[in-house]
Amino acid sequence: MTLRPADDSVLASLRDVLPERVFAEMRPGVLEEPRGRFRGSGGQLLRPECTGQVAEIIRWANAARVGVIPFGGGTGLVGGHVLPDGPAPLILSLERMSTVFDIDPVDNVLVVGAGAVLADVQTAAKDADRLFPLSIASEGSCQIGGNLATNAGGMQVVRYGSARDLCLGLEAVLPDGSIYRGLNCLRKDNTGYDLRNLLIGSEGTLGVITAATLALHPLPGVTVSAFAAISSPSAGVRMLREAADRLGNTLSVFELISKTGVDFLRETVPGTRIPLSGDDAWYLLVEVADAHDSGIESRVEDFLARQLEDGRVSDAVLAANEAQRQAFRHIREMLPEANRRIGAIASHDISVPASRIQEFIDRGLALVAEFGPLRVNCFGHIGDGNLHFNIFPPAGCSPDELESVRRNRDEITRRIHALAVACQGSFSAEHGVGRLKTGELNRYGDPGRLRAMRGIKAALDPSGIMNPGAVLD
Amino acid sequence: MTLRPADDSVLASLRDVLPERVFAEMRPGVLEEPRGRFRGSGGQLLRPECTGQVAEIIRWANAARVGVIPFGGGTGLVGGHVLPDGPAPLILSLERMSTVFDIDPVDNVLVVGAGAVLADVQTAAKDADRLFPLSIASEGSCQIGGNLATNAGGMQVVRYGSARDLCLGLEAVLPDGSIYRGLNCLRKDNTGYDLRNLLIGSEGTLGVITAATLALHPLPGVTVSAFAAISSPSAGVRMLREAADRLGNTLSVFELISKTGVDFLRETVPGTRIPLSGDDAWYLLVEVADAHDSGIESRVEDFLARQLEDGRVSDAVLAANEAQRQAFRHIREMLPEANRRIGAIASHDISVPASRIQEFIDRGLALVAEFGPLRVNCFGHIGDGNLHFNIFPPAGCSPDELESVRRNRDEITRRIHALAVACQGSFSAEHGVGRLKTGELNRYGDPGRLRAMRGIKAALDPSGIMNPGAVLD
Repeated sequence: MTLRPADDSVLASLRDVLPERVFAEMRPGVLEEPRGRFRGSGGQLLRPECTGQVAEIIRWANAARVGVIPFGGGTGLVGGHVLPDGPAPLILSLERMSTVFDIDPVDNVLVVGAGAVLADVQTAAKDADRLFPLSIASEGSCQIGGNLATNAGGMQVVRYGSARDLCLGLEAVLPDGSIYRGLNCLRKDNTGYDLRNLLIGSEGTLGVITAATLALHPLPGVTVSAFAAISSPSAGVRMLREAADRLGNTLSVFELISKTGVDFLRETVPGTRIPLSGDDAWYLLVEVADAHDSGIESRVEDFLARQLEDGRVSDAVLAANEAQRQAFRHIREMLPEANRRIGAIASHDISVPASRIQEFIDRGLALVAEFGPLRVNCFGHIGDGNLHFNIFPPAGCSPDELESVRRNRDEITRRIHALAVACQGSFSAEHGVGRLKTGELNRYGDPGRLRAMRGIKAALDPSGIMNPGAVLD
Repeated sequence: MTLRPADDSVLASLRDVLPERVFAEMRPGVLEEPRGRFRGSGGQLLRPECTGQVAEIIRWANAARVGVIPFGGGTGLVGGHVLPDGPAPLILSLERMSTVFDIDPVDNVLVVGAGAVLADVQTAAKDADRLFPLSIASEGSCQIGGNLATNAGGMQVVRYGSARDLCLGLEAVLPDGSIYRGLNCLRKDNTGYDLRNLLIGSEGTLGVITAATLALHPLPGVTVSAFAAISSPSAGVRMLREAADRLGNTLSVFELISKTGVDFLRETVPGTRIPLSGDDAWYLLVEVADAHDSGIESRVEDFLARQLEDGRVSDAVLAANEAQRQAFRHIREMLPEANRRIGAIASHDISVPASRIQEFIDRGLALVAEFGPLRVNCFGHIGDGNLHFNIFPPAGCSPDELESVRRNRDEITRRIHALAVACQGSFSAEHGVGRLKTGELNRYGDPGRLRAMRGIKAALDPSGIMNPGAVLD
């Protein structure tokens, strides 16, 4: 099925049904993706104001066979929001649909338009004395619709789950232009197929999410943050299990940081304070949060003392106040920026079972070493088995050398992904497939599941208008 | 698309590809459902021993256009496992596929065949010092495959979620006979459409679940149980929110019990001990569980003292030991049995937002009263907004009177479901749609979602062999 380009003659009939203000000039950023791997070739930017307009647009696009690229904050890292070639699409930005419709602290829900910026959703929840726990590096600009379309993860998944687990209901426009009105706020509803979870993580290929009912949590009364030097990643995994047994369900952040990451911060982000000497190979950022008066501080102290005794931790410090707590978190949150400033050759977002994290890292470092004295910053959500394993040129690398190591990028990535899969893991833990990893999905995806995915795509979007070329090529 | 009956001539070619021992004689129970609303009309019972045989069967059935009814423990309450009419189907019992393949206390997972009885899964987890928290009345006979196919809920959803939330990976045979091999144990994997959640809750209409990777939790070090008389269901809802704020994420059971339920127990289950006087209108069973040495007992005492002061609780008792704790739980667990012995006219499994529970109960009791002096046992998972609202004849009702009130059953059910939906709720919170509620799904289901469901069903099962007539009629 061939799509038609959204050129002026084709668009004339869309202009008849939509207010002129929905049509917007192309602007910087819309055709880019943060790592520069993809660049959009053009298209008509649309900024609808309500779900009804989105439905009009999709219905029109389905009839006219024009592709539609849903656009949130533009922060995705796999090219899911840019179409590098093919007929010019409609680029559907949800930015004007950012209203918080309702916050209910009894039902513990927040109903919001898909275009709301994640940080604004967090703030709206906090103003109602509740926590919306989704927390990712791009939270100042990413939008909740995009978070759901990609099932975003981030820092607090270990306790609260991914975007999927924080969504009770969806409103979406399906590829035929019909509106799925599923903004319920029920904790239990077994009435047929789970369309909500099918849309979440489908990266805009099965419809456009227009609004969501989000689950809120109590704001913790007390949060304890620790920064600890650990003997190895596997020691971190053992600590994770012991923490679950000793501290109950209070662990909300459990992040791995490497010495390379610390060095990158020192080099590129002046003023970053590392609480310990910074000469150990591996660190953990740990946050534990609980209700008021639960005595969690002393339990965390006991827990860390025991880890010191057992040799898993060589040194640790607790944040003495909120400013220090923020400073600890800042270390972790600045890692992607430090990586950008150093300039990665290749980035990976893999997951493996907890029991195989050490093996993955050992084998991963060994295979990268085969390509020369490259630097590896391995960090991330060890509590979820999700590591970012990013490869950098040697320090002081000349432009010629850089050119030469860059030539190995695809080969390194191929082998890192193969290693993750060999460790029973995934080649995309939280970033999604987008356009970057469609080849990997074909290579590693279960054939039965791929066939089912293609069947579902063809059933819901027979003309293939929704985000063409993403997820399934 | 018309299906063919699984009669001897048609089955001959299936006998060629399967060992004779897979073909079983029909036995009592297989054609029944617990409440007697449906009765299967026949079919060929099959007891495959491995996933390969299941795939052979489905591939054959798809080619031969013979219907397949997946059969677990036979405990479902909506007729999802019995075909009352139409061409004789294959009845596919997974009972022989009950092996626990793996338990990993580092990855916190258990991999098990779909035919394992839920209680055996719980025991296997406990033997590895872990908790598998799914807990429902039929756990001694229901099977994990059926629990997943119906997204079972039960008593600990308030903390650990439904079956869906406890499953990390699935193996399933899809309607074309292909095997979806998705038994991974990853906490994060964003590589395409969420086929796992689509199969979970699809009640065997999109494929047969053959094995699952289940998420385990730490065994709580200490559990505190309370039985409390409360002033109203809405007081219970307020307590729930305060408990989340004061006790952190430790609340694992939060169940509503009515005086009618207590009376039913006294009448039908001799020896049941009610810890309080039993003359209050409403009770809560509360369980709070946490790690060792967390001081949770005194926090629960403080919490209940505060609720007494505020008038939400009129009396409360904590279980002094494990036997008493079991006795408290027994009260709640015996309610379905007591209901059976009294003999319900109509049973409902609804959910509403927490904020509308009191309204639903008030209006529900008023509408039932219009039909005469009926008794209502309203109980269940108030922590999830999920109530069982079951209607019984007046005490000492004569057979003639009983006949007369039974005639109102459909009308009462229609109005109770309409009331739940009017309160922004669901007509099936945890039992599913099966064959009992397909009419309700057509009436109340979102049209966009229903169209998408039909499209998905047609795409994955074009011949309509999988559990024909369930969910979508």
